[in-house]
Amino acid sequence: MAKDLGITSRGENYADWYNELVVKADLADYSAVRGCMVIKPHGYRVWELMQQALDGLFKATGHVNAYFPLFIPKSFFEREAEHVEGFAKECAVVTHHRLKANPDGKGLIPDPDAVLEEPLIVRPTSETIIWNAYKKWIQSYRDLPLLINQWANVVRWEMRTRLFLRTSEFLWQEGHTAHATYEEAEQEALTILHQCYARFAEEWMAVPVLRGLKSEGEKFAGADHTYCIEALTQDLRCIQAGTSHHLGQNFAKAFDVTFQSAEGKLEHVWATSWGVSTRLIGTLIMTHSDDKGFVPPPRLAPIQIVIIPMGRDEETRSKTIAAARMLVDGLRALSYGGQEIRGHVDDREKESPGFKFNHWEMRGVCVRVEIGPRDLEAGMVPVSRRDNGEKQSLTLGPDTASTLVDLLETIQKDMYTNALAFREANTHRVDTWEEFQKAFAGEGGGGFVVAHWDGTTETEEAIADKTKATIRCIPLEPLSPDDDRPGTCVYSGKSSAKRVVFAKAY
Amino acid sequence: MAKDLGITSRGENYADWYNELVVKADLADYSAVRGCMVIKPHGYRVWELMQQALDGLFKATGHVNAYFPLFIPKSFFEREAEHVEGFAKECAVVTHHRLKANPDGKGLIPDPDAVLEEPLIVRPTSETIIWNAYKKWIQSYRDLPLLINQWANVVRWEMRTRLFLRTSEFLWQEGHTAHATYEEAEQEALTILHQCYARFAEEWMAVPVLRGLKSEGEKFAGADHTYCIEALTQDLRCIQAGTSHHLGQNFAKAFDVTFQSAEGKLEHVWATSWGVSTRLIGTLIMTHSDDKGFVPPPRLAPIQIVIIPMGRDEETRSKTIAAARMLVDGLRALSYGGQEIRGHVDDREKESPGFKFNHWEMRGVCVRVEIGPRDLEAGMVPVSRRDNGEKQSLTLGPDTASTLVDLLETIQKDMYTNALAFREANTHRVDTWEEFQKAFAGEGGGGFVVAHWDGTTETEEAIADKTKATIRCIPLEPLSPDDDRPGTCVYSGKSSAKRVVFAKAY
Repeated sequence: MAKDLGITSRGENYADWYNELVVKADLADYSAVRGCMVIKPHGYRVWELMQQALDGLFKATGHVNAYFPLFIPKSFFEREAEHVEGFAKECAVVTHHRLKANPDGKGLIPDPDAVLEEPLIVRPTSETIIWNAYKKWIQSYRDLPLLINQWANVVRWEMRTRLFLRTSEFLWQEGHTAHATYEEAEQEALTILHQCYARFAEEWMAVPVLRGLKSEGEKFAGADHTYCIEALTQDLRCIQAGTSHHLGQNFAKAFDVTFQSAEGKLEHVWATSWGVSTRLIGTLIMTHSDDKGFVPPPRLAPIQIVIIPMGRDEETRSKTIAAARMLVDGLRALSYGGQEIRGHVDDREKESPGFKFNHWEMRGVCVRVEIGPRDLEAGMVPVSRRDNGEKQSLTLGPDTASTLVDLLETIQKDMYTNALAFREANTHRVDTWEEFQKAFAGEGGGGFVVAHWDGTTETEEAIADKTKATIRCIPLEPLSPDDDRPGTCVYSGKSSAKRVVFAKAY
Repeated sequence: MAKDLGITSRGENYADWYNELVVKADLADYSAVRGCMVIKPHGYRVWELMQQALDGLFKATGHVNAYFPLFIPKSFFEREAEHVEGFAKECAVVTHHRLKANPDGKGLIPDPDAVLEEPLIVRPTSETIIWNAYKKWIQSYRDLPLLINQWANVVRWEMRTRLFLRTSEFLWQEGHTAHATYEEAEQEALTILHQCYARFAEEWMAVPVLRGLKSEGEKFAGADHTYCIEALTQDLRCIQAGTSHHLGQNFAKAFDVTFQSAEGKLEHVWATSWGVSTRLIGTLIMTHSDDKGFVPPPRLAPIQIVIIPMGRDEETRSKTIAAARMLVDGLRALSYGGQEIRGHVDDREKESPGFKFNHWEMRGVCVRVEIGPRDLEAGMVPVSRRDNGEKQSLTLGPDTASTLVDLLETIQKDMYTNALAFREANTHRVDTWEEFQKAFAGEGGGGFVVAHWDGTTETEEAIADKTKATIRCIPLEPLSPDDDRPGTCVYSGKSSAKRVVFAKAY
């Protein structure tokens, strides 16, 4: 492959590899608006497949969708003290509702006669506008629980942005639920974490995730506590893939949302909120992709199987194309993961087979089937797996399509198994400050470091300061049985109840 | 039904009826942000069903989805002269990227140190930001056509708003396509009009629509010409349900997007854009709903069939509930319009049957099945249609579910037939100015008035000035064969090539 067609390798420069892959695999592009991306059709298809799966999981757990305004009045934003502290420094502020001709004759200016009485904030997250609506909707315990999700765009003004991982505008879903008791809200936050987020990450994305609690320093601005799922990237850093917050009564108090309980008492409502975003696409790339390009797991691949008919002359080409079409029709009649198989025949005349191989390797097709005139005669076709490059020869016949579907299933499982083995190989238990520093030293350092911590924010900050590693989560289940035994803090030497997970974070 | 549970009747006050219905049927609510609505779960479900159907039609005609930034730099907005003229007076302008504590101690203010170098406009429509991206994506005729759609929110600052019909923020889809020739772009604009929009309106919404061309005065700001679908409401006004624009080379020229043709010449690209929005929900309500509430057609109903088990004591209730559940399970195994049947058992203990009947009439369930102890004994259950109130008795047995699905099909067809008959009864041909004025006079005046027009903007404006009626469209096919014969303009007496459709518009 000519250098100009490829991308920087991971070993050479991981950051460049990622940025080039996103653009060359046609997933996303930079836009003219600083920090905002264009999600190209190929990348958007991944997001659509993610949305379908997640939406199905949300609905299966009793949630419904709704839509709330893009704009938040500044005064709402100010009501929850921690929340505003967390978001005021990075928000887009709308101040005018009209443009007018510039009196100096050059272009347009915001019309000074059209200044808004109150500035509006483009939502960075919707707790405030939603809880203001819930105040009208909730009067009695009979109105609870309220289990609502929203698919939306949000804006957080970021200074340093990267496609999918950190952009000023991104797409996400945000769930906002209201409950009668602390326990019910707690159950909801955990249902989302386990039955929706972790399940989606592992079964669809083939990304193993740690499920844990955030430390005080890392929790959501306005939450009582935050649960998260965390994945390990190939460059041994941690990426937060989703969060589920128990908000306590903080927003109910800020917006004065009360309900009459079954016993007739007036009480503040308990809340959760939870979200995953287009960042998941970045997580997917960082877990599975390789130096040749994008490697999506079958359940999220825009095209799962590409069939490339070959032949130098018109007559042979017409035969191989006919065989390719028959196979793709056979695939369409089957399903995998509850969906029609996404097969494609690449019969472009002007491109060479080599060009097509590279094209589909870069864009990420799970399986490639070549059909040449000799293959047709022999009744056997070469099949290549994108995830590990393995090649095999398949008999061309009535069962070919279902054999290919089985292969997709195998790839989906293997990708998860391999990612899990990678994570396990890069998870280390350390007990001394020297080992700890060494684990994160240099370019190659990183991974998940499972160590004792004294539970204080001071220690967390001191460790971050010295190593750039932070507490990614306090695991809900010990990664290894011994992790839940008491010990002494790796930094302060004070007593520690159990081990937590440190890593350098994206 | 107690007055306080119901809504104003259409005869009493149509505008109040509409506004009260939207809120009481739980479709949408006013928000704290002027002009922006909250789409409640029940209303959002209608939008989801609309999206599914439309997205399927777009994909079946070769389109793919993508996502472009929410913000448009002011300078982009200024490039196409007619376009900026059309949108500059009603847009939300972002000027700051941070809030800071007010020096006077009260709350927050936009930080004067965080003024954007260039103001950003919240997209009112995305032609400019998308054509700026297309400039990078299009070099050769091989890159064409580009057939992209986007599902997004947009903002047009409106002074007088109405839920679904006209809101400052609304949800929509906007297609933006690029082509090598005028003819191909023309074909695209018409494919969308006929195969996607009109088909969706008639087959899913059960709303008959006129398909036509907009006059110069009514076309999209920046288009060469605009096609539209137009529906008649129950108060005899016209509602624009969708538009498909041939943009000529206007945006390609404004953003300098050229391609090398097969013959090696550098040419500007041809474009279309097209959109439908949450306004379709308003159109749906205004076509079919009645004084008792929302009447959705089966294909777009959040719940198609509600089953209400009855019985005064625990024992009978347990029997009727079991029968109801068996029926709803039978329904789930069937499909209609390619989708699982949406059935629901309302077994709330604390609400009376009368309360439930009203509840579901207001929210719009297509069919209601009551199961009382006597019905169960007799093996026959009373079934009521929401659209026309007809009642029948159905044998309870293995075929009940499929009989109900047939009934949904009948309702879907009847609703279309009735809406078409209503439109035909309210479409009038007039030939004199006196008749024309009379047709639109008074409160009851309106409907579609098919009349000759001399083709000038002056006459169009004079007519609008005197009657408030405007040209809703120049039909692509004559509504009646004679409509395409020449005649004399109803206002100026000058010659006219064919009749056009006038109406008062929403």
